[in-house]
Parts: sequence; structure tokens; C-alpha cells
Amino acid sequence: MSENWRLDPDRALPADAEIRKQARAIYDEIASLPLVSMHGHVDVDLFAANKPFRNPADLLIVPDHYLVRMLVSQGYTPAELGVPFTDNGGTVAGAEASDVETDSRVIWRRFCENWRLFRGTPTRYWLEHEFAEVFGLSAPPSAENADDLYDELTAALARPEFRPLALLDSMNVEILATTDSALAELDSHAELARTLGPDRIVPTFRPDSLLHVRHQSWAKEIAQLAEVSGIATDDYAGYIRALEQRRRAFVAAGARATDHGHVSADTTPLARTEAERIYTAALRGEATAAEADAFSAHMLFEMARMSTDDGLVMQLHPGVLRNHNARIHEKYGADKGFDIPTRVEFTRSLQPMLEEFGLSHDFRCIVFTTDETVYSRELAPLAGAYPSLRLGAPWWFLDSPEQMRRFRESAIETAGFYNTSGFVDDTRAFASIPARHDLARRIDAGYLGKLVAEGRLGPDEACETAIDLTYNLPRHAYARHERNA
Amino acid sequence: MSENWRLDPDRALPADAEIRKQARAIYDEIASLPLVSMHGHVDVDLFAANKPFRNPADLLIVPDHYLVRMLVSQGYTPAELGVPFTDNGGTVAGAEASDVETDSRVIWRRFCENWRLFRGTPTRYWLEHEFAEVFGLSAPPSAENADDLYDELTAALARPEFRPLALLDSMNVEILATTDSALAELDSHAELARTLGPDRIVPTFRPDSLLHVRHQSWAKEIAQLAEVSGIATDDYAGYIRALEQRRRAFVAAGARATDHGHVSADTTPLARTEAERIYTAALRGEATAAEADAFSAHMLFEMARMSTDDGLVMQLHPGVLRNHNARIHEKYGADKGFDIPTRVEFTRSLQPMLEEFGLSHDFRCIVFTTDETVYSRELAPLAGAYPSLRLGAPWWFLDSPEQMRRFRESAIETAGFYNTSGFVDDTRAFASIPARHDLARRIDAGYLGKLVAEGRLGPDEACETAIDLTYNLPRHAYARHERNA
Amino acid sequence: MSENWRLDPDRALPADAEIRKQARAIYDEIASLPLVSMHGHVDVDLFAANKPFRNPADLLIVPDHYLVRMLVSQGYTPAELGVPFTDNGGTVAGAEASDVETDSRVIWRRFCENWRLFRGTPTRYWLEHEFAEVFGLSAPPSAENADDLYDELTAALARPEFRPLALLDSMNVEILATTDSALAELDSHAELARTLGPDRIVPTFRPDSLLHVRHQSWAKEIAQLAEVSGIATDDYAGYIRALEQRRRAFVAAGARATDHGHVSADTTPLARTEAERIYTAALRGEATAAEADAFSAHMLFEMARMSTDDGLVMQLHPGVLRNHNARIHEKYGADKGFDIPTRVEFTRSLQPMLEEFGLSHDFRCIVFTTDETVYSRELAPLAGAYPSLRLGAPWWFLDSPEQMRRFRESAIETAGFYNTSGFVDDTRAFASIPARHDLARRIDAGYLGKLVAEGRLGPDEACETAIDLTYNLPRHAYARHERNA
Repeated sequence: MSENWRLDPDRALPADAEIRKQARAIYDEIASLPLVSMHGHVDVDLFAANKPFRNPADLLIVPDHYLVRMLVSQGYTPAELGVPFTDNGGTVAGAEASDVETDSRVIWRRFCENWRLFRGTPTRYWLEHEFAEVFGLSAPPSAENADDLYDELTAALARPEFRPLALLDSMNVEILATTDSALAELDSHAELARTLGPDRIVPTFRPDSLLHVRHQSWAKEIAQLAEVSGIATDDYAGYIRALEQRRRAFVAAGARATDHGHVSADTTPLARTEAERIYTAALRGEATAAEADAFSAHMLFEMARMSTDDGLVMQLHPGVLRNHNARIHEKYGADKGFDIPTRVEFTRSLQPMLEEFGLSHDFRCIVFTTDETVYSRELAPLAGAYPSLRLGAPWWFLDSPEQMRRFRESAIETAGFYNTSGFVDDTRAFASIPARHDLARRIDAGYLGKLVAEGRLGPDEACETAIDLTYNLPRHAYARHERNA
Repeated sequence: MSENWRLDPDRALPADAEIRKQARAIYDEIASLPLVSMHGHVDVDLFAANKPFRNPADLLIVPDHYLVRMLVSQGYTPAELGVPFTDNGGTVAGAEASDVETDSRVIWRRFCENWRLFRGTPTRYWLEHEFAEVFGLSAPPSAENADDLYDELTAALARPEFRPLALLDSMNVEILATTDSALAELDSHAELARTLGPDRIVPTFRPDSLLHVRHQSWAKEIAQLAEVSGIATDDYAGYIRALEQRRRAFVAAGARATDHGHVSADTTPLARTEAERIYTAALRGEATAAEADAFSAHMLFEMARMSTDDGLVMQLHPGVLRNHNARIHEKYGADKGFDIPTRVEFTRSLQPMLEEFGLSHDFRCIVFTTDETVYSRELAPLAGAYPSLRLGAPWWFLDSPEQMRRFRESAIETAGFYNTSGFVDDTRAFASIPARHDLARRIDAGYLGKLVAEGRLGPDEACETAIDLTYNLPRHAYARHERNA
Repeated sequence: MSENWRLDPDRALPADAEIRKQARAIYDEIASLPLVSMHGHVDVDLFAANKPFRNPADLLIVPDHYLVRMLVSQGYTPAELGVPFTDNGGTVAGAEASDVETDSRVIWRRFCENWRLFRGTPTRYWLEHEFAEVFGLSAPPSAENADDLYDELTAALARPEFRPLALLDSMNVEILATTDSALAELDSHAELARTLGPDRIVPTFRPDSLLHVRHQSWAKEIAQLAEVSGIATDDYAGYIRALEQRRRAFVAAGARATDHGHVSADTTPLARTEAERIYTAALRGEATAAEADAFSAHMLFEMARMSTDDGLVMQLHPGVLRNHNARIHEKYGADKGFDIPTRVEFTRSLQPMLEEFGLSHDFRCIVFTTDETVYSRELAPLAGAYPSLRLGAPWWFLDSPEQMRRFRESAIETAGFYNTSGFVDDTRAFASIPARHDLARRIDAGYLGKLVAEGRLGPDEACETAIDLTYNLPRHAYARHERNA
């Protein structure tokens, strides 16, 4: 179908002729390796239902906060891009339900007319790859061809090979980890395990809102936790046992990892009595902000302790201030592009956890950051010393060509390649998964190609390293440990 | 005149052959576009008077703190470079008026003998451009040719085409924004508007010392504010009204923007009564340092509020600790090269302002930094979400080839090109304006050329983007909004 | 001997053909200049004894914490790599003296089997250089050839040309500064001065543990200070006089510099009475942590004051949290790879010292950092203004190709080349000294070659600058000042 639009086969490889030659040779070794997707946000029910995607806007625009926020930054409201109001969002002053654009074609046109805004961004790269390679569109978007492309996409989505499970196969995704509430019943995962086998779509345990005692839904979720675990949570001991029970349920459902998005990386444990005291105060709605932070740090330490027991890999990604704009949050809810990074500290923050578990062979922690300054200063030195620690891939705002290259240039000299996790795609945009993995492979090939061209690594070593980064390291980093004891 | 000295026409373009080819083609499209100079520090009276420059040292060395500080860092005193004492500077122990070098030729020789110190710095690039392209000197400076060059420069400065207004034309400066005290009467601007038209040399409203209640001249300036505005400033309400009046006067004189150089970016508003209380305490000289900081943050919020009313674009550039060395400050005054950046925070600091005005179409804020770590972590995510925010050009210490390149590599992937302001030159050194714009154009052409060579952008898109960055974006970013209401 | 293994003569030079040509020409001018090694950690007694190295593991692996920590990060214990327990380390639960591997050949094999871990790290580069150029090994390490290489190394170490002093000559080390306790008797230095001349191996005054009143060995060392200086240290005045006496002893032994590794860069002086009060409290073991920090900052200020008197160059390298893991520290002692950098601040911290001594021609301070974010933001602006300040080479974790390149790209545009110290190797691994200097020369040649290729510097200027960076700047930066008075 893609008769007019061919992507540059050397795109995102370095321009220098000698480096490109080396990079091309390395990339050729890894381009068709299976995708190991161990950290993402595609909804498991998408696969359980396996229905056709409704329309181009619903598939490609509305759920992609990278894309929505860029159009918002130039003057659109989220509603004009089809983003629905939350339940109480429609009651916000000035918001009328009719403001939400429901015509998928209109939303698509708005996107196409603003294609230039994405120049120089990874969104541009991912979408080009999706459009040309996954959906076979005939040309890049523009104001002029918006309607034609819309029709091409609509026709494609009606075909069986564009249903979720078919795409999972054609995209060559070997394993996909979803991210799930700690309260999730995991029914869809169980069903998919039966039909696809046990290691194809696996859950990830994300307990954030349960660990922040001042989170707006904490009280409600604590009650749900009791219900789903069958363990009373009206005291701290029960709360801990209930969390342990949920983790076991995730392990049974094939989970490899937990996932933690606290603002701070603090892991300072509390004395048992102090933890109990704060928990009890929180149940009465009387915990202070400082107590909530202290409890949250304590619970990261507890999560590490539980990981040494049940073998779940612990993923940490602190440092993002969620819902920076209250109006956007109230009207549209979370994850709408208004989460903004802040400075983050790891050296002192992780010390309590690493003192206790850092040398243990039963513990693995993978750390992510959106603050690139910590790579050379803190994370590479830590990952280059502690056997339990792996340095996660550049993530979210840093999942882009220049940042991935800078990650390699900042972290590898101290951490080495073999203390890193390999690539994670972290996407909510299902169809972008192959594009994201492909881009990372090209950037890694470029970096390794430079090392070869500068006489810093042999060509065979570079190819072996590329394969490890692409396949073996993520497979190994996310392998759940069986407790030796 | 420049018979022996030709600058490399490809200077500051990337070395790689393929990238250079692309960059050269892009640069050719923008090299001769008019200069849009929306943020600088050339004194308006220079143009109102339009007299010949006195001598080479007074034009090129004494007012350029980039240049003076480099020679000071290697052992000269500012006085030895012709920097005059302040009124009370001459009374500082050890300072004698006769220490100030008054022989322009001697100062010029000291500079020429130390030309090697500027290797690898943007000052070197700017001066080469000025010497060869603006003044047509015969060779780069050296100890040997110092006197010859001095004579060449002196002869040039005597000619009518080197008077300020003639240079403004020959430099192709389409519009020049000066930076002016909020107390300025704006007479020179009015006169120049009559002779040059209303949009050639425009003022910028800079109220810093009026907003810091512990600034050494605050009490004096508050009194002047009452005088120039005709509004009593003996209470907070009058102070606010007087500031609003001054802003209206700037608007009437053609101003596009305000300019704010606080140490912190904090924009937390105070309750009205608290602001009144601190203002009253300050009038009695009793405001504490903490109260002064809180009031200063409050006033940034107020400035944003006023901008939504009068449409002046708000420029913020926090994070520089002024007058790091008290001896230098006491002897020579401000802006002598001893202003040193510190770490700065934006995500939390700007939140109050962006909560209130960030989604408004009546507000525009352009943010600058000398702390490059905030580009990828804070400013690009903020500018890539909030429609009111534009990311300013790399500024002051960051206005250099490597830093401009790194700015593109750090900010664009998240903010996109179209949430940036385009180039600002921010110079006190009038004759360096074309050099600064030219260097920025070359670096941008190099960055865009790399995107083309790596298959990440089409050549036509790259040229269009380059023209936008050079001309359309600064024109648009600094366009005063007319209030829709 | 090295018949099969030839290193790439262009290794670590940029890949781009034009830049490489320029870089190669520059490198050729500096490749064989003598090594000026002004900051390192080789034990002086190694030279005083001048015995053959015991075995390959003792020479190359056990003392190199870069190498040990990388193997530890992948699961070895330090003991398995031959790192001995401290006196009380053997009593730690679970530690048995027999756990410490004593078979040098076994340790060597473990290293060789894990050669791939060092891909992309400077350790890899240094070791390749040592193996191929210093020891003439026949091939890079691997599991297969470990025993053969071990035998080759063992044979080499038995030969007279591989004794320490012979290596010093063949390595072309013109001057080597060791780092020594402020309590050192300096006998070995005196003996070496007699045999090698006064300027070949010189001591450096490192008083860290004497300046931190809560350091675990402070009380003991204060007593030793009294003993070695012959001045009672039971009050603050005596303590200061004793330190001044030790500095004079170091000056007499040829020292050029002092060396200070505080956690913070704070230099705020205390009132004399407050310093006395804290000192007295500390003698009673009653100083608080906050008092200890304040005293430590005060003593940095005092060290600067003493430097203006005795002319010793002051080296500062704050920002590393030592002994991050208490278990490792207890078992194995300090400097085992578990020192982790933290964020560091200079602008405000150095202000008190620079206010007082920063403009003095009798004072020189060289500042190092492991937090690269301070280069463009703080250190380059400070070094580019204050005549007393020099910016030290990228150090420890930053002594690597990408980081050295980034240092140049971050610091030089503001500081210039001539406010930097030139290279320091900072190594404990004696045989790596030439490799470290060679790598730095190649990276500098690459950076200068890029400036030439991009028309930003002339080829002759680039060669002159390279020679200055390699030889003249470190010679000059570490020249002890004779007090003018």
C-alpha cells in the first residue's frame, strides 16, 4: 500500500560515513530481534476483548499524551482533541459536555494541520514509523491530505490483521508487561495466559496510591485492598499482609516486577511502632504531609524487603510532579501531559535500602529518572557498584534520540553496558511499540558504531553488545528471582 | 579594506561533510534575513545622541564584561582595563583615581597581547566577526599589530558610516528592544520613534529594584516611582497602581515586554493583606529577608496578572547571584563580570503563576536560564504543555556554539521548535549584534542540517524551520497581545 | 613481545575524517611530551622500596577500585577478588579470613573471564594501553588466554625494567606528586629527593581527617599531630600552629599543594571565639554534627589563608559521599568503589573564601568536581572571573573520553583554556599513569581538532594550546607561589 512513502532505511543512524557503516552493520544484526516489552501502559482489556480499534483518533491521538500536550501547548484545549471530561470535569465552570470534540475526522484534521509542531521530536519519528510501516499510509500528514489519510486508516482498522492480538504477533512482541493496579483482579491476564500461554502478556504490580496515605483515593483503596485480599486492613500489620498477598497473586499471574512512581526516591525505613502510629492516624484522616512522606519512604523500603522474599523486580521512577495544573486535572483527570519532572536525588535517598538489600543476590532494583543529571553523578556510580541495582533505560521525556545517545555517553563509562536494563518502551500508544524499539536499536547501533569507528571497541564485541542490550539484558533484568533459600 | 583577513565562510558549521552540505544550504536561506533584536542592553541614548564612538577601548573593551572579566581572571585589575570607579569606589582602601587607565591605546594593547585567552570562547568568534566584517581590520589581534589595528579602528570610527544609527542600518537591525528602568521617562524613545518610526527602537520595562523591598535603592526608587507616575506610593495599593501606570507608559512608547531578573523563579502570591503588611514594614525599613523574598515572588505573580491585562510579554531570567565579589562591586559597580549563576528551580516555582494564567491566551511568558540542567528536566516539559509559555534562547553564559547546540539537543525533542522564542542577543556590546545573530544562525543551521543528514527531517522542512527560528518566532513571541475582552 | 596485538594508533580520536586529520596532527605534537603528574595516590614507599611487584593481581587488580567495583557490581565479593579484610573486618558476621582469595592466578582468571564488563569504560582503555604498551602482552584478556597472559605478566614483573623507579623513567614521568597524610614524617620523600633530585617525587598535604572533628580517628590524629609537630594541640591556637608547622614541613619536602576532600564546598569562616568553642567541645567529644560541618567549612577558609602565606596551591574536590555501604566499609575499609557522588554547590559555598582571597596574587585554588552540572553553571563562570581560581581536570568518574570531551564543551567557552589546570591522573594504579595521560591528550587533540575543522581556531593556535594543556598549564598551575611580601 505504501507506494509513495518510503522511510529512509538509515534514519536515526549517525551521519558520519564511517560511523554509519559500522552502525548499519550492527543494526542489521538486531533489527529483527523479537520485542521484549517489560514496562508499558497498554490496557490488558484491549487484548482480552480483541475488538477492532474504533477510529483513527481513538487509536492514535486521544490516548497519546505526548501528542495531545503538544497541540495544547499551541492553543487547543484537550476537549478540542477529543479528550473527555472526568465525571466531575463537566461540572467545572466554563466546561460544557458539547465542548468535547466527538468527530474523529475533525480531531484527525487538527492533528494533520499541525504536523510541523512535531519536527525534531520523537513523536514525529514514532508516528512516521507507525504510519508508513504499521499502517502503510501513502504519505506524511498535512492539511491537504488529512481526509485521504483518514480514509486509508479507517479502511486498515476494519481488517482483521489490525486487531490487537494480530498486531501483537505482526509486531513481533515476544512478551508484553502491562501496568496494573495492586487491586486488580487479574482476570484478563488469567484468560490471556490460557489462550496465549503463560509468558506473553504479564501484569506488573503498581501500588502507588496505596502507599501514599494522603492520596485522594487512599481510604477507598485500603478498603478495596481488604476486600480483594481477604485480609482486614484496619491495622498496619493487616495492611502489610494484604500487600504481600496481592504480590503473591501477581506472582501467580506471571508478574515479573513491581512499579513505583513516588515523587521522591527516599527509602528511609521507620521503626515499626512509628509506621503503625502513622497508619492509624491516616485511617482517621489525621496524617500530616510530612508523616505521609515518611510513610511513603518507609513503604519503598518495605517493598524492597518483600522483593527479596518473592523475587519481584522493583522498578523505581521518582521525580515527576503529577498534575501540575489543577484545572486540567479537575477537568480531564490524570496523565494528560501536565506531569512535569523535578530535580531528584538518589545517592542519599537509596542508601537505606541499599545498605540493607543492595548486596543481596535475592534483590533486584531497576531505577529510572527523568532528571538526566543523575546519570553520571549518582546512578551510574551506584549501578556500577551494587550488584542488586540496574540502570533503567532513558524513559518518558528522555526516550528520544538525543537523550538516548546522551544516556549512553553519560552512564556507560561508569556503569558499563552490563549494569543497564536494556530498552523499555513505557507507552500507552499500542501501535507505537515497534517504532519505539526500532528507534532505540538505531541509537544504540549508532553509539556502538562510534565506539568501533573510534577504535574503542571491536566490531564483533559491538554486535554482541547490541544483541545483549536489545534482547538478553531486558530478559535477564526482569527475570523474577527464585529465593535461594 | 580587509585585504588580508578573510573569515572562513563555513566557520561554526559542523565539520562532517554531509552535515555541512545540508547546513550550508540552510544557512544560505537565513544569512541575510533582518536582525530581530528583542532583548538587549544597548543604551537608548547612544542612538538619540548618535555621536561618533570615542575610541576603540570605549567601544569594544570597557563596556564588554565578557571581555573584561577574562583579562581580570588572568591578573589585570578592571582599572587597568579602563573600567572606572563608582562614586564611592575611589574611596575604597587602596584605590586611587590615577589607577584607572585612561589611555585607550594602552588598554587596546593589553587586550591584543592576550588574544590567546579567548581561544574557544564566543567572545573570540564575535570579535573576529566584528573586526573583519564590521570594521574591516586587516588581521587578527596580536602583540605585534596592536598599534596598527588601533590606528585602523580609530580611522574607521571617525567616518559617518560608523555612527550608531548608520551602523543600525548597515547591520540590518529591523527592530531593537532596549532594557530600561521602570522609572525611565522614555524621552529618547519618543524622539527616536518620531525620527525612525514607531517600531525600530522600543523600550522594555525592567522593574527589578522596585520589586525587591530590601534592594539598596528601593526606598529611593519608590519615591521616584511616585514622582514619575504621579501616584503616591505610600501604601501598597498606590504602589500597584503606580506600577500599572508605568507599564501603560511603556506600552504607549512601543514596549513589547517586561524583563525580570530575580534570583529565584518563585511566583507564589501572597494574600492581599500580607502583601500590604510587608510593603508597610518595608517602608519603615523593617522587612526581613524572608519577607522580601516572599514579596518578590508575589510581585512576579502580580506582573503576570498585569501582563494578561496590558499584553506585555513577560521575560523571566532567574538564577544569577549578582555581585559575587563585594570588593569589585564597591569599587566598580554592577555588571563587571562577577555575576555567577546558581542552581535554579522552575517546576514548583512557576506553578502558582501557571495555575492561574498558564492556559490563558492573554498571557505570554518567555523563560531564560543560565542553568542548562533545567532544559530537558523542567523548561521543555513546561513549554511543551502550557500555551502561555515560550522557552527563551540560550542566554548569557549559554550564548555560545556548544551551548546553543546542546540547548537544541536538550529542549527540542520535548518542547518542539515552535515553543521557543528564537534568538535573543542580550548584548551590551553594540557592534557585536550581527556577530551574535550570525553565530546563532550557523549553529541552528548545523543542528537542522544534522537532522536532515540523519533522515530525521526533510530539507524543505529544515529551511522553513530555520526561517521561523530566525525571524518569525521572535517576531511572534514578542508580539504584544491585545486583550481579547 | 607484543607481536600479535597492536592498538589502533588513532584510537580515541574522532571518527570524522577531517577532524581526525586535524586531531592527529595536534596529537603528534604532544604524544611524547613528559608526564606531569601533579595529583595521584601511588604510595611513596613503593618507590622508596623499589622492589619488584609481587604478582599481576597485586599490581593490577586488588588496588584498583574502578576494576574491583565493576566485578562486584556483577556479583563477586571483594574478598573473591583478593581484597583483604580490615583488622576488624574479619570479625564481621559471615566473614571468614579464608574467604579472601589469595591465589593471584585465580583472581586474574576472574578478571579475564569478565573482560566484556569493561566495554565502553575508561578502565578498558587504560588496561589495553597498559597490557599492550607497558607490558607487551600478546592479546586482549579472555577466559581462554587468562593463564597464558598471567605467565607473560609474571615473567615481565621479574625483570629489572619493571621495578617502580625503572618504570617511572620509561613512562617518562617528569614529576610525580603523591598524596600524604598531614601527619606523614616524609622520610621516604626525603630519601627519594636525595637519590632522584628534589623535584621528581613530591608530597601533597592532605589534612581531611584532622579538619572534621567528628571523623572517627580525629581524636587520635590530633594527638599524633601534636607529637609530629612538637606543638600541643589541646587548644585551638595550638591546633592552628601545629597545622601551619606541618605545612611548612611539606613545603620543605618539596610539596606544591594541599588536597581537600570535604563533602561540601562550604568555606564560611567562624568567629575566632566560635571556632575555639567548637574545638574545645570536640576535644570532649561533644561537638554536634552541625558544629562539625561549620568547623570544617571554617577550616577550608583557614587553609586558604595559610595558602596565601606559604604558597601551597589549594586543591578542592568536594561532593563525594564516602563509604556509601557500611558493610563494605566495615569489612574492607575505605576506597573500595563504594564512594558515590552527590550534588554539590560552589557559587555560594566558595563566596566567603573568594571574597577574602579570590583577587589575591598570593593565592591559587584548583577546584575539581564529580558533578558535571557545575561546569557551565558555576565553575567556569567563577574560574573565568577570579584570578586565583583554576578549573581542575575532569576527575575520578569524569576522567573518561565522553566526560573529558563534555568538560571541554561545557567549561571552555566561559572559562577559556587558560583558566584550567591541565590534566591530573589521580590514580592509585601506578602502571595506568601513561595510559591516562595518553587518553587525555587524545581527547584534547580531538576537541581542538574539531575547533580547527569548524573554522573556530587556527591549526597553529591549536597545537600551541595542546602543548599548554599538556605541559605548561599543569606546570604553572601547581607552581608554589613565593609570597611577594
